[in-house]
Formats: sequence, C-alpha cells, structure tokens
Amino acid sequence: MEGGAGVSPVVTLLTDFGAADGYAAEVKGALLRRVPGATLVDVTHEVPPGDVAAAAYLVGRTWRAFAEGTVHLVVVDPGVGTERRALAAEAGGQFFVAPDNGVLTRVLEAGAARLVGLAVEPGASPTFHGRDVFAPAAARLAAGEPLAALGAPVADPVLLPPYRLERRGDVVIGEVVHVDRFGTLVTSVPGSTVQAGASVHLAGHDVPLGRTFADVPSGGLVAFVGSGGTVEVAVRDGRAEEMLVVERGAEVRVTVRGGSPA
Amino acid sequence: MEGGAGVSPVVTLLTDFGAADGYAAEVKGALLRRVPGATLVDVTHEVPPGDVAAAAYLVGRTWRAFAEGTVHLVVVDPGVGTERRALAAEAGGQFFVAPDNGVLTRVLEAGAARLVGLAVEPGASPTFHGRDVFAPAAARLAAGEPLAALGAPVADPVLLPPYRLERRGDVVIGEVVHVDRFGTLVTSVPGSTVQAGASVHLAGHDVPLGRTFADVPSGGLVAFVGSGGTVEVAVRDGRAEEMLVVERGAEVRVTVRGGSPA
Amino acid sequence: MEGGAGVSPVVTLLTDFGAADGYAAEVKGALLRRVPGATLVDVTHEVPPGDVAAAAYLVGRTWRAFAEGTVHLVVVDPGVGTERRALAAEAGGQFFVAPDNGVLTRVLEAGAARLVGLAVEPGASPTFHGRDVFAPAAARLAAGEPLAALGAPVADPVLLPPYRLERRGDVVIGEVVHVDRFGTLVTSVPGSTVQAGASVHLAGHDVPLGRTFADVPSGGLVAFVGSGGTVEVAVRDGRAEEMLVVERGAEVRVTVRGGSPA
Repeated sequence: MEGGAGVSPVVTLLTDFGAADGYAAEVKGALLRRVPGATLVDVTHEVPPGDVAAAAYLVGRTWRAFAEGTVHLVVVDPGVGTERRALAAEAGGQFFVAPDNGVLTRVLEAGAARLVGLAVEPGASPTFHGRDVFAPAAARLAAGEPLAALGAPVADPVLLPPYRLERRGDVVIGEVVHVDRFGTLVTSVPGSTVQAGASVHLAGHDVPLGRTFADVPSGGLVAFVGSGGTVEVAVRDGRAEEMLVVERGAEVRVTVRGGSPA
Repeated sequence: MEGGAGVSPVVTLLTDFGAADGYAAEVKGALLRRVPGATLVDVTHEVPPGDVAAAAYLVGRTWRAFAEGTVHLVVVDPGVGTERRALAAEAGGQFFVAPDNGVLTRVLEAGAARLVGLAVEPGASPTFHGRDVFAPAAARLAAGEPLAALGAPVADPVLLPPYRLERRGDVVIGEVVHVDRFGTLVTSVPGSTVQAGASVHLAGHDVPLGRTFADVPSGGLVAFVGSGGTVEVAVRDGRAEEMLVVERGAEVRVTVRGGSPA
Repeated sequence: MEGGAGVSPVVTLLTDFGAADGYAAEVKGALLRRVPGATLVDVTHEVPPGDVAAAAYLVGRTWRAFAEGTVHLVVVDPGVGTERRALAAEAGGQFFVAPDNGVLTRVLEAGAARLVGLAVEPGASPTFHGRDVFAPAAARLAAGEPLAALGAPVADPVLLPPYRLERRGDVVIGEVVHVDRFGTLVTSVPGSTVQAGASVHLAGHDVPLGRTFADVPSGGLVAFVGSGGTVEVAVRDGRAEEMLVVERGAEVRVTVRGGSPA
C-alpha cells in the first residue's frame, strides 16, 4: 500500500531526546505544521543517547501493534551531520524514517521492504535532522505521498549483526536482547521453538518454562513466551536482571524438548 | 449514559510501564487500530512497579477532570496471568478498564458504579493484558458499545482498605495518602471538615491552616485545602516530605476548629 | 491573527509537574472538556520545580516550531496563590498563557506582543491555576476567542534579565543558557555573528567553530551553530558539560573572526 492518508494519520516517535528538553516537541511541531490533526504517539524518548541497538529492538517490536499506513519516526542518530544517509522505508504496509545506521535492522529482517534515500535540504540544521529532515519526510508519508516520491531507491542499508540464534540438536543458543522496566530478560529465542518441558539455562541457572508468572511463587524465577513472541526470563514480583546479574548480550541456552542443555 | 462515541473519544492511560520501553505505545497501537482518531492522554506510566495503592490514588482524583464518556485504562497489574479477574466499570458517566486488584477502589468509593468481568481471549499474551485485554475493551467502550456488552456483572470487586478517616470530637484523624512531585503531603482529610483556625498535627509539627503557599514566608510550613479537595501540607519553595520525614500512610490529626490536637 | 480555530487546534504544555503525578493529565482533561478534539503536545513536564529561567529558555525556542494559532500553556509557577498576575499573550501569531513571573521573557523579547491579565474565578484552586485558570484560558484561545476577550491589557509584564550578550571588538561575550540532554552547552551568542575561523573560549578551553559533530573525532570538543540558531559547544559522542565542568550562566567568549579572545 502507499500512504497513510485517513481522517487522522498516525505517526509514532522513537528517539533518544529525553523528556527534559523540547526537542521531541519541535519534531511534533514540524509534523503538525504539515499534517494538522495527525495522531502522534510517543514510543519513547528515553533510549540511552546514541544506543542504536536499543532503539532497533524497540521499533522492531512496537511497530507490530500499529495499523497499516502508520509512519514511524526513529531518530537515534549519533552520526547526525556526518555523511551517513537518511532513509525512508516501507515494510509490512507501514512506513519508517530513520538515519541509515542500523536502527531499522529488526524491521528489515522481518520481511520484504523498500527503501529510499532522503535528501537533506540546504536549510536543515546539521545537528537536528529529526526536526528538519525526518519530520518533513514522515509528514509527506503520513499525508499519503508514495515512498518513491521521497528519494532514490537504496539497496544496501546499514544493518546491525543479527541476534545470536543457533541450534545444536535440542539446544537453541540465543542472547538477551533487552532488559525491560520490570527487570525481565527478553531473549532472541522464538517462542515457536519451545514446548512444555523446555528449560532455559542462563547465567548458571536452569529456569523451567512456564506459561506466566502465576506458575511460580513470589520471588521465583520463571521463563515463558513473552508478549513479543520470544522466550523471556522473569522473577515474579522481582527483577530477573538483579537476581541473575545479567546484561544485554548475555548468552542463553534453551533446551527445546526437556533434558539438560549441553 | 452509555458509550463515549463522539468526534474523538478520549482514552486515558495510567500504568507502571515506565517511559523507556514501548509497552505503553503498544497499548496505544491496539487502541488506535480499533478507534482511529481517538484522543489518548497519558496520566502517568511512572507508577512504581506493582504499586496498586499509588495507582488507585491517582486514578481516584484524575478522572474527575475529564468529561462524560471518557474511558480510563488503568493497568498496574502484578497479578497478570493469574486467575485475577479483569474488569470494566462505569461510574459517574465515565468508564474504566482495570485488573480486579483494588486499583479502582477510590473510584468505586465515590458513588454508584456498574462492573462487568472481561473475557480473556485465547490469543491474549498471558503477560500483557494491557495490550491484549484492556486495550480492546477500552476501545469498545470508546466506540460507544454499552458496558453490559463487555461481560457479565461483577458484584464483589476487590477493594483496598478505605483511607483512615475518623473523628474524635474536634479532631479528625487521617493519613498521608500521597506525596507529590513537589514533596507536598496529600492527606485523606476532606477540606469540607476544616475551617479557619484549624491546625494540622503531623510528625510532631503543628501546622496552621492557610489558604495557600502565599500565607507563609519562603521555607515555611503551611497546610491548606489542596486541589484534590483534601487537606495538604507543604513547604513554600521547599519539600514538606523532606522537612517532616514523612511517608505515605503517616498519621495526620486535624483540629477542625482551632485549639490543640489530642 | 485571532484564534486558533481549525479542525484540531494545537495546545502545547510546558510545566514542572513531573511525570509521576496526574497533574498534567488534569490540565489536559480541563482542556479537552472545553475543546474536544484538540491536539495536545507535551513540551516537557520535567522543568526543575520552580525553575522559571529553564522554562523561559524552553518555550523561547520550542514555539518557533509550531504553526500560527498554536496555544502554549506554560505553567512553572512557584508563586501560585500569591498576588502574581496571570497572563495571556499573543506573539508572532501564536498564543501563550502563563503566570506573570518572567517565564515568557524570551518570547516577548522576540518581537511585538500583546498581553492581557486573566481573572481568577472564585472557584479556582489557589494551588492549581494550571488546571483552573490557565487551561480554561488556553481553551478559549484554542477555540478561537480573541485575546482581548480574556482580560484587560497588561503593559508591564515581569521580565527576567536579558541573556548576557555584549560585543568588544571582535569578541562577543555571552553565557551558557542551557545544558541539554546530551550535555551540549547552548549559548546566547547568535550564530549570525560568527563566521568560519571563529573560536569559542569557555572554561579555559579554546574550541574551534565547525559545522557539526562530524568535524572532530570521537571525544573531541566542537562548537557550531546549533539548531536553535545560537552557538553551541559539544563533545562528539560525549558530554561537554562533564568535560568542561560548566553550568548554566557560565561566561562564554566568541572571537567572531579568528584570533584569540581578549
């Protein structure tokens, strides 16, 4: 499909601008000047400054909750003002504008996509492409302009390495890809690969796979297929991150059929 | 009244999801897919994880600022995935969706209400009912569906204990129910019970009742009837919480007619 | 122009209410009751409590990103409940409501403005004019009422001191007016006064003026004309605030034409 024109097109914002400055509001002003009445949704502005991998994870799952035609503005952009390209993309009937630094990796991994390069107009601030390059492009897509009108095709976007995911017999080896607000550890292991009896080996602990928190007493470790579709490890009424002392990138081994990990 | 259908129905969100993940945005995506053009208002996503009492306080005052037909989604839900029920409610012409864990206590105390139980569809994530159970229910109410269409009546919702409030002669004994951003202590004592000359006894201090900050010099303690209708204790240009070293639940005694507390 | 009536008038909110209470949501409820369908944009609610100068900086740049007819509600109001006046203003085709404490200084410095005083209705909470005085006034402006209908003209608004900015030969002396999320130091020195070859002297460092971060290696200091139109000092992939140990108000000297500062 082309364009998100409707009564009120939806534009989401995902940045590392924080909540204390007015930068996100300036982006919104730039959007609303061009698409009055647009529905603006903050995904977060609390990505750690410059943490492209964190932003890639967040957009990679959040966009799935939105309808066709939604435009996602993703600006975690430590290379703003360098020669890095600026992109607009279409994937799964939704649209994305972002710097070409890998932040769209998880979206692009999910299926076929089309990409174009965005021009940087001479008047754009070299340090605030969110307002002066990405917001205008997002507005054009939200107003229904076709992707192809925004720039020439790009075939070689910058990509982050894929998440670790490898199978050795009954063991799937993955990694922790995100630690959330509740201290829950989200892994790269698809829920579709595990079944009852599976167990998760992480930071020296064997964690049985359940269905949800309710399967263990308060303070207990539990693994389950999380709301993003992959295996997660949590502590009921507690923080798995603290109990296991684990960070993003930690290796996780899942025996998909019972038994012990290699 | 039934339903909040209008040009742009209003749905508020009050959760403990924090600002750094995309969970609140996924809830918004689920709402906007079903009610395009809805006006979404964040109350807060910074409720401490699982702090049902804090969320109950916040929704208990915030909803009064909204118009008839507004839908309030309140998801502080440490029991997600357990057998706790999911509720939708109507009170005072507004609507609420929330887990049945007491988080609606202050709303239900305020007057007559109707409650129904929400079904959990088989496809719902057992750990993210905010997106998969409460958002769809809120969307149905926002679109104008009658409450009764959402489930069977519930007569025995879980309730938190009422706030302490007891009268002994000229003294009203209450408690601190909230400490706000400014360090101001909000109590359970209704402003309607006090008059000029009243004084507030809290943590060993006698605080005279004034009308506002302006009644004391900078750094001075003052009590007044706050914007939520109950007695508050504040420090002008300072933080009462720090000066008095007081937390939620602390006892407060108000002499409603002058004189000293018992 | 008068009024912001359109399909969806835009109202921005800039306060020190924080994200954990429901105060900002109560303001939004008060707005939406009066102007259903308004587009509400949070600038920030994280102004340090009572920091009028910080809020003045933020509104002073953010409003420029918005369209004619936008209404900006600016409530950092340590004097709420005192005799300080409440204002509505029009400047550059946009509207503002705020306490008369200097918070609109940077807007009023930017060009011609009209100001009126707002009445405080007897029912207004003496401690929450954001909800009970400023939101109703903002709603009237958003609905298209003329400024003059809101109150009598005010000719002598409270103003903060102007930012330091003085020229001595080839040296412009200014000050740091803001430290942003990225640790970047925003100064009062207009970008229009500098040219290639200029250098910035700040906290004992001489920083060459470049075009953007890309002009220095990672970890390097760089000055450039920032997205707000004034000179900024930053560290590529780092925090100038920490490297230079500088706070708001620090003196900055810019040689506008090469050479060394006096």
